[in-house]
Amino acid sequence: MTYELHYWPMIQGRGEFVRLALEQAGADYIDVARLPHEAGGGIEAMMDRLEDEPLRPPFAPPFLKDGDLVIGQTAAILLHLGPRIGLVGASEADRIWTHQIQLTVADMVAEAHDTHHPVGVGLTYEDQKPEAARRARDFRETRIPKFFGWFERVLARNPAGPGHLVGGAVSYADTSLFQLVEGLRYAFPNATARALDATPRVAAHATRTGRLPRIAAYLASERRMPFSEDGIFRRYRELDPG
Amino acid sequence: MTYELHYWPMIQGRGEFVRLALEQAGADYIDVARLPHEAGGGIEAMMDRLEDEPLRPPFAPPFLKDGDLVIGQTAAILLHLGPRIGLVGASEADRIWTHQIQLTVADMVAEAHDTHHPVGVGLTYEDQKPEAARRARDFRETRIPKFFGWFERVLARNPAGPGHLVGGAVSYADTSLFQLVEGLRYAFPNATARALDATPRVAAHATRTGRLPRIAAYLASERRMPFSEDGIFRRYRELDPG
Repeated sequence: MTYELHYWPMIQGRGEFVRLALEQAGADYIDVARLPHEAGGGIEAMMDRLEDEPLRPPFAPPFLKDGDLVIGQTAAILLHLGPRIGLVGASEADRIWTHQIQLTVADMVAEAHDTHHPVGVGLTYEDQKPEAARRARDFRETRIPKFFGWFERVLARNPAGPGHLVGGAVSYADTSLFQLVEGLRYAFPNATARALDATPRVAAHATRTGRLPRIAAYLASERRMPFSEDGIFRRYRELDPG
Repeated sequence: MTYELHYWPMIQGRGEFVRLALEQAGADYIDVARLPHEAGGGIEAMMDRLEDEPLRPPFAPPFLKDGDLVIGQTAAILLHLGPRIGLVGASEADRIWTHQIQLTVADMVAEAHDTHHPVGVGLTYEDQKPEAARRARDFRETRIPKFFGWFERVLARNPAGPGHLVGGAVSYADTSLFQLVEGLRYAFPNATARALDATPRVAAHATRTGRLPRIAAYLASERRMPFSEDGIFRRYRELDPG
């Protein structure tokens, strides 16, 4: 069974949360839009597929094709994949808790995005720099500490120890928190370093997750695209002034 | 089995999506924070419970207690409740599709909130009026039509007809879309009326859902709080200028 991931081919973006889960699971998947044009790749083909989906069209990329099933929304994709690729616990309680953590990661991702696009997604960053400066300040000073404090609490209260977010094995919540911390380290290196000083379990969790053999191999491969100022996590010096 | 909903007692907010589902199902539930202080109600008791939750503390209200299980994140609560209260289809495909729609509703709810809080949740609207004016304009002109266009497409492509979002029965996605449209009608009456003119299935869906006997009874009851400028959907004339 080969999973088909459909996402913007030139950025990590939200698709990266799905890529990391598939990589950690060693799952068989194709990153369709990154294929050559002749093989069905490219943005235009992806958007045509989205639009033409006859019954249940996702709102936006990423979307996953699993046989006849087409699933949009990052968190829903991971909810579907989790039990199939062994990245979530077996109990219903573990599954809904893992999903809760994923949805909280998604909330923080959306807020990280809005630091450079507080006014409108159709405008450029240059069109909204004063607003971005204000939003980024609030994000650095209030939101990063609040979210990281919660992740720290979740790790500290895990009866199986702070090595994982849920129980004693890797779940998609772990790979997602790793990506969130990596992205924030890229976009807000100063503010993130300060927040991680106060949340040592979150810092250790990111280090440990990045060293998982399959994650490390993926990060070192050409499949891992670099962070950039076209993605969700963008480094603009003026938004993280030391 | 009595469900316990924990949410800010003075606003509809995100908790309203859970209330509407419970009401439509005729489920047995207590809106705990709205009880008198002596009976465990009030904001302080709610925040203490959130903080003290020993193993799996939700990030924020709303959260649901179902026996020993404590679940935060509106979409996760509805994912859990759906099959238990008969507000989602039986097939896995229906369930993940219903959840996808819920997550897209949640995305739009977050954007509606940010029209009056584009810079920071810790600040008041008065602290960010110029930024709010720009964000609200983009929301009215671009985002409402885009999201409504997608809901229209979902209704139009439902093989069981446009009466429901998924299949031929009411799901929690239906009560959530109803609440979203109601909220937008309150906050942006002009822009929403224009958008609904272009998406007649969405307009008819909201009317029909509001007339479901249990929903109509709830809306007429004292349990339904009014919209207000303390909630997610706020009416500020300057953000919807005709």
